[in-house]
Amino acid sequence: MSTQKIRIFAAKRPDLKTISSVQNPIVKQVLQLKEKSRVRKTSGLFVLEGKRELSLALKGNYRTGPVLIYEDICPAAEIEALFDNTPRKAEFISISKEVYRKLAYRETTEGVLAISENKEHTLNAVSFTKANPLILVAEAPEKPGNIGALLRTADAANADAVIIANPKTDLYNPNILRSSVGCVFTRQIATGSTEEVISFLKKNNIRICCAALTASVPYHTVDFTGATALVVGTEATGLSDEWLRNSDRNIIIPMQGEIDSMNVSVSAAILIFEAKRQRGFL
Amino acid sequence: MSTQKIRIFAAKRPDLKTISSVQNPIVKQVLQLKEKSRVRKTSGLFVLEGKRELSLALKGNYRTGPVLIYEDICPAAEIEALFDNTPRKAEFISISKEVYRKLAYRETTEGVLAISENKEHTLNAVSFTKANPLILVAEAPEKPGNIGALLRTADAANADAVIIANPKTDLYNPNILRSSVGCVFTRQIATGSTEEVISFLKKNNIRICCAALTASVPYHTVDFTGATALVVGTEATGLSDEWLRNSDRNIIIPMQGEIDSMNVSVSAAILIFEAKRQRGFL
Repeated sequence: MSTQKIRIFAAKRPDLKTISSVQNPIVKQVLQLKEKSRVRKTSGLFVLEGKRELSLALKGNYRTGPVLIYEDICPAAEIEALFDNTPRKAEFISISKEVYRKLAYRETTEGVLAISENKEHTLNAVSFTKANPLILVAEAPEKPGNIGALLRTADAANADAVIIANPKTDLYNPNILRSSVGCVFTRQIATGSTEEVISFLKKNNIRICCAALTASVPYHTVDFTGATALVVGTEATGLSDEWLRNSDRNIIIPMQGEIDSMNVSVSAAILIFEAKRQRGFL
Repeated sequence: MSTQKIRIFAAKRPDLKTISSVQNPIVKQVLQLKEKSRVRKTSGLFVLEGKRELSLALKGNYRTGPVLIYEDICPAAEIEALFDNTPRKAEFISISKEVYRKLAYRETTEGVLAISENKEHTLNAVSFTKANPLILVAEAPEKPGNIGALLRTADAANADAVIIANPKTDLYNPNILRSSVGCVFTRQIATGSTEEVISFLKKNNIRICCAALTASVPYHTVDFTGATALVVGTEATGLSDEWLRNSDRNIIIPMQGEIDSMNVSVSAAILIFEAKRQRGFL
């Protein structure tokens, strides 16, 4: 098979503002937002990369811009079209190869980056449209890749909300954004202390099912058709005592091999899709 | 909470051969085996790291040694004890901090590395002890991390075999070993061309269930209690036509969110644990 690449040279747009120096303040701002959680926190801004990510963020009603476009690989018209069916407007800026190389993750992000305003992700903002919501709760997940994978699974399963208890990182960490392939923008996501999350679930009469090794029943024998929160801890230490004390039902995935733990995102997927199965994928 | 570390200084063993120079030929061999697939292939050797990995390799009847031990963090006696209940003998070599730093992955591998002989992983060597084996097949998985995760899931589910069709990498790639947390050593694993694997499955009367988007039925409506191969392709392109032409049943995981694909190791886990559920985890 030929591995020759076909290069498409799109016409550049002379009307766009251009940034060709890596010393430009916007370039510096993008770098700071990507690298520093503190800067994201104080400014309320973050950087997203990629067409799908931008499209999902707009759909998720994120306020986005300026949008930086490397026109050699991404026609500006394609990005402008993403804004067409939204109430959002944004400034489009054409960036040079040098600037793109400086900003983009391994140059794999399709030629587009955008500064965007974050959301609050408070528990108070979470609302349910059905009587038996299905919620995925993860306590203190550490690896951004795992959080991204959890969000991706929650999207696929159309979970009603994802809640991160005692978060160790902000949701707009570039590694979370990348591994979630934009699913940070598609679900209701909330964060809070473990105490706050438990209180929220109890107030909403949601059954707390904790993945745990002790006093547990096999997950597939439990009825998940009512309002349910599936709660998973970290691979290394599991859930905190606070969760276990407040658990309505401890569940376990039978492990029949030589090792005694699974990746948290894999465990969460097995549990949430069993719940979906029981609900007939409704 | 205190973050102070407690350091344990184990007595070093004066009787062990010692390597303190990074120029030592064994050090060079270990580096070559870790870095070069070609060297692994021609020599039939690879390098494993970590206590659990060594323990699982011995249990899986791998011929292992020499074993390199950084005694400051790993007492030699602990490693020798792993060999006690096995017919295996190995040379133990004490390595210096400098050598350990040069060889170990991010210094997180518990102070032990070992050169080991690989296995052939031919389809002919695969045998089944039950009438209804459950097999996981992955076609041309690209990311070592995904392969490791697949092996880990297959171990947890006690799958009867894992088969990699058209492998893109050898199984002893350090990133596969690491992400499998030693599960490369715990299952029957075979590799072969897609054609060979299909022929093997047909010869053994194993039903071929392909994860596919076309002409598919929801996975949870399919009976997986008979002899079953669950076949998954890559995230980007799915399974090849050859698989789809030979499929007994195409299955799909209903996707109800904004994105249209899941990580291959997550999909495989959902499918294999549904099969286990149907079989009552027997």
